[in-house]
Amino acid sequence: MATTIQMQVISTEELKKAVGYKAVDDHIRSGMVVGLGTGSTAYYAVERLGQKIKKGEIVDIVAIPTSTKTEHQAKTWDIPLVTLDTHPSLDVAIDGADEVDDQLNLVKGRGGALLREKMVEVEAKKLVIIVDESKLVKGLGITGAMPVEVTPFCWKRTMRRLLEVEAFQGCQVSAKIREDKDTVYLTDNHNYIIDLFFQKPIPDISLAARQLIEIVGVVEHGLFLNMADICIVSGMNGIRVVEKNP
Amino acid sequence: MATTIQMQVISTEELKKAVGYKAVDDHIRSGMVVGLGTGSTAYYAVERLGQKIKKGEIVDIVAIPTSTKTEHQAKTWDIPLVTLDTHPSLDVAIDGADEVDDQLNLVKGRGGALLREKMVEVEAKKLVIIVDESKLVKGLGITGAMPVEVTPFCWKRTMRRLLEVEAFQGCQVSAKIREDKDTVYLTDNHNYIIDLFFQKPIPDISLAARQLIEIVGVVEHGLFLNMADICIVSGMNGIRVVEKNP
Repeated sequence: MATTIQMQVISTEELKKAVGYKAVDDHIRSGMVVGLGTGSTAYYAVERLGQKIKKGEIVDIVAIPTSTKTEHQAKTWDIPLVTLDTHPSLDVAIDGADEVDDQLNLVKGRGGALLREKMVEVEAKKLVIIVDESKLVKGLGITGAMPVEVTPFCWKRTMRRLLEVEAFQGCQVSAKIREDKDTVYLTDNHNYIIDLFFQKPIPDISLAARQLIEIVGVVEHGLFLNMADICIVSGMNGIRVVEKNP
Repeated sequence: MATTIQMQVISTEELKKAVGYKAVDDHIRSGMVVGLGTGSTAYYAVERLGQKIKKGEIVDIVAIPTSTKTEHQAKTWDIPLVTLDTHPSLDVAIDGADEVDDQLNLVKGRGGALLREKMVEVEAKKLVIIVDESKLVKGLGITGAMPVEVTPFCWKRTMRRLLEVEAFQGCQVSAKIREDKDTVYLTDNHNYIIDLFFQKPIPDISLAARQLIEIVGVVEHGLFLNMADICIVSGMNGIRVVEKNP
């Protein structure tokens, strides 16, 4: 009982900080090429990396940010930044996620940076995901939007095609173009985002991923399958580490 | 002998005109939604359609152009234009191609409009391809570029991934970013084009198409598989029609 009471006074920010710091402490070593994620939890990983570089505890690091926001944060810490063009392979990437299933498959991109995140993280030898336990799900797709980045040209036709994806049958899918104030939201890559919503989890996510990417006009989607290796989860009962089944 | 001599005086332009006109005469009827291709052969199909509308031989037509250039040409003929957003299904589309194999699989996009062409033509109930016989090949990939439209972000990394596609093994693939004068060529969709060149035909084009589209950063590629229904071919021995094996 005493323990429970003690845990409840830990704030959400403290939990985010704990997993962000742990990811850096456990997985980043001197000499590595590192991918830096985007979002309120990844923020703390960048902070921790910056601190360790400043103290000289980690040296000879270069990092690739997954968004302009992370780039700015990394620069304030003087973390040396590079791109995939010069550093095509990463030792480790650390990022948050919107949903995580028990095979460590993810939904990402509610923040809008899915293409850049996927491009960087698919090149990482190890992808470490940091989340709070509210992101853990049995099946992907039902806690919020599953974003799909599409070409602006004839996006309404692409939206129709998205609603017809065979792998979504029975999920009661609906779709909405993402907006930003009174205009259509534009990604870093000058594309639109169509947010898909499901009443039931997507039963066959591999099939869904394949059918999504084959739609002409789809640039990328928020299903990150077979990419994450480790998930560090914070919750009211503390922090635990989930490794992908080999 | 006399026949041969007679055929040889027919110019390339006359051959293009002949197939362009035949495609319209054989496949476009009043009341249809029509896709209009791009290029020097498709040009004559647009011209013929315009003539027939002007004479009142075809009425109640709407058309979807696959490029700004075709849009301009269609407007000079007062062909009523619509988009996929309002007309998601086409009765017929007519377009040229860069390569056609004996199953009517195509390489398209050397003109740079592959994404818009594929988006429109994939929605056509019937796709009619018009070419001269120099475009007929045994295997796809070796008469020139096979274009891939990619996101500008980290395109060098995407190019590296393209060269590693398993389905290209043994084809001696090379890659070049498309340029326009001294700058990188930009598509209508603000993307880049990486042109792939092969010394040997791509052996498994279905596998190649699947592996290409799954690369993060690839928006679309120039392999148009299982899309064409009919190919009208002009050559020194006249015009012939090839239908897809059912």
